[in-house]
Amino acid sequence: MSIDCSIAQTITVELAERSYPILIGQNLFSSAIFSRYIRGSQVCIVTNPTVAKYYLPRLKACLSSVPQVTEQHVVILPDGEQYKTLASFSEIIDSLVNYKHHRSTTLIALGGGVIGDLVGFAAACYQRGVNFIQIPTTLLSQVDASVGGKTAVNHPQGKNLIGAFHQPSLVLIDTLVLVSLPEREFKAGLAEVIKYGLTADAEFFSWLEQHIEKVLRRDHQMLSHLIARSCGIKADIVAEDECEKGRRAILNFGHTFGHAIESLTAYKRYLHGEAVAIGMLMACRLSCRLKYIDGVIVDRLTALLLCIGFELAPSFPGYSSENMLATMCLDKKNTSRQPTLILLKQLGQADIVKTVNAEQIISVLLQS
Amino acid sequence: MSIDCSIAQTITVELAERSYPILIGQNLFSSAIFSRYIRGSQVCIVTNPTVAKYYLPRLKACLSSVPQVTEQHVVILPDGEQYKTLASFSEIIDSLVNYKHHRSTTLIALGGGVIGDLVGFAAACYQRGVNFIQIPTTLLSQVDASVGGKTAVNHPQGKNLIGAFHQPSLVLIDTLVLVSLPEREFKAGLAEVIKYGLTADAEFFSWLEQHIEKVLRRDHQMLSHLIARSCGIKADIVAEDECEKGRRAILNFGHTFGHAIESLTAYKRYLHGEAVAIGMLMACRLSCRLKYIDGVIVDRLTALLLCIGFELAPSFPGYSSENMLATMCLDKKNTSRQPTLILLKQLGQADIVKTVNAEQIISVLLQS
Repeated sequence: MSIDCSIAQTITVELAERSYPILIGQNLFSSAIFSRYIRGSQVCIVTNPTVAKYYLPRLKACLSSVPQVTEQHVVILPDGEQYKTLASFSEIIDSLVNYKHHRSTTLIALGGGVIGDLVGFAAACYQRGVNFIQIPTTLLSQVDASVGGKTAVNHPQGKNLIGAFHQPSLVLIDTLVLVSLPEREFKAGLAEVIKYGLTADAEFFSWLEQHIEKVLRRDHQMLSHLIARSCGIKADIVAEDECEKGRRAILNFGHTFGHAIESLTAYKRYLHGEAVAIGMLMACRLSCRLKYIDGVIVDRLTALLLCIGFELAPSFPGYSSENMLATMCLDKKNTSRQPTLILLKQLGQADIVKTVNAEQIISVLLQS
Repeated sequence: MSIDCSIAQTITVELAERSYPILIGQNLFSSAIFSRYIRGSQVCIVTNPTVAKYYLPRLKACLSSVPQVTEQHVVILPDGEQYKTLASFSEIIDSLVNYKHHRSTTLIALGGGVIGDLVGFAAACYQRGVNFIQIPTTLLSQVDASVGGKTAVNHPQGKNLIGAFHQPSLVLIDTLVLVSLPEREFKAGLAEVIKYGLTADAEFFSWLEQHIEKVLRRDHQMLSHLIARSCGIKADIVAEDECEKGRRAILNFGHTFGHAIESLTAYKRYLHGEAVAIGMLMACRLSCRLKYIDGVIVDRLTALLLCIGFELAPSFPGYSSENMLATMCLDKKNTSRQPTLILLKQLGQADIVKTVNAEQIISVLLQS
């Protein structure tokens, strides 16, 4: 299985005794790699039907040649955000109990963000915490959920309201899996990638501008670099602030606007990344209006988003700046009546700003 | 409210940035104390009808004089181990969501072990972790669950299979609440107290032998000392090994036998402490048979247990040494086919022993 295994990049998320590597490359289903990160004799793979079709047989075959693994079983959950619930969490736990999994078991999340968050949360809670490995299969989950150990399920009244911080022992990012990813999902994932450039690395933002055509053609060398740099930036931030008490909040750049857009459209019209793209442009315009950054940066972001094919402004029935502002103030990360915003201080540097007033926000929303 | 507030002892559980104090005394419902450990403006008290009747009005009155608290609400869950479920956990979460609790909220667990474990787990998972305060109202929860941050709910097929490690910010142990505790429950709590003496403090064991009459009369000075010493011993062990990777296992002294007794009687015939008392005597006899300790220690433990009124041997239909051994091998803390046991190396010192064979265990079980 491991003949063509090629690790292009390794990023280490530094969290003391919870540190773990992210391996990025191609054909990473290697028994040699797995055997290093599986502790006991039991493995439980959790995936969804779409991903299972492409990758499950290969993963199972690979795991059966890991010497210590004597039992493996699979849980297949329906695909979609609407299944990221306590009921699905329970299903994973029931399965672990039924197959008598010990504390030494390893859970493997094979799928996108929904599978990753669910399995991570089940791993956090089963017998008060067991080992887990993430194999993210979407660009978004590769550059976002694979770093930082945030796990959760949704509550009928809000996203990610029930969860835990629980770090995986290994993340395997195979750029080959992106070949089968639908175009729209691939592009949505790029929004978070752009966020890392804007908020933390001006050079990376320029690299994206220069190489966007090749990236859109899913050139593996480009993808490896792009994923590694994204994970590296997030890893640095998370290492500083694992439990989101301070600086980690800058990862929410564009998200307060984005969440409001998703919420006002009942999470149906836009993919998360599409809403974040619009939100980032709003946050950028606000940063410019407050004279933190030059208009040139707004223009550069606009051009890059256009090139990928993102919508630049909300275009749904009932959109109004008043609705947006009201929804932003309800955001769960918000603890006061005034929304806390992440704004750019310059290209590659973001900051938490609590002093923006409603008029300033409204004036930017009216521009959109 | 705080006129007669008297803190007799303070034990600090040392866990770096998760350290917290256990205050032991009388009339501890003091707004001055609460105001130091409640961060936001919201409080959610979780309790059961039995405890609510005695203490809820006083607690609510006290909290309403805490300056920062502007919202408090109460969740009352049915009393009993059979309600320590994911469904009750969900009920707490639903209530937090319905009342729009922020990340800065504080949960207060007012009750015994079931309430403490449930509320702790809800606090661990709501928005990935919020503040919580424990007010344990049984002797068992005061000397056991109040230290170490183990939280959990039961699964239909096993106890505490779903949970987390989550430390409270404060534990308030009021010895006055023990006045209303039924005799049988009070005595069962003493089993864990004796365990601390046997496994970690020979002098404390002797103190218990000398003062058992006053303890049984629930003399407050005796109770304060007994609870403080128990919490202190457990705090030292937990500080060394928060997530039970090694030494913390010695707290399971008597529990592998005890759990088997509980399991064989479907958790109905014995209270946890009553089963542990029998289990400790078995573990003590085994330690003696293996020549780790002198027979005098077995005799001293027997006398102390008798004085409290514990049964010394299992007396239920269908008990057999073979059943016991088979059940012990299924214990969730067991990772191999041979049970790992905690045995005494001398009075006040326990160790993890993995080399006991079935014949040695059977011979001790036949003695019982």
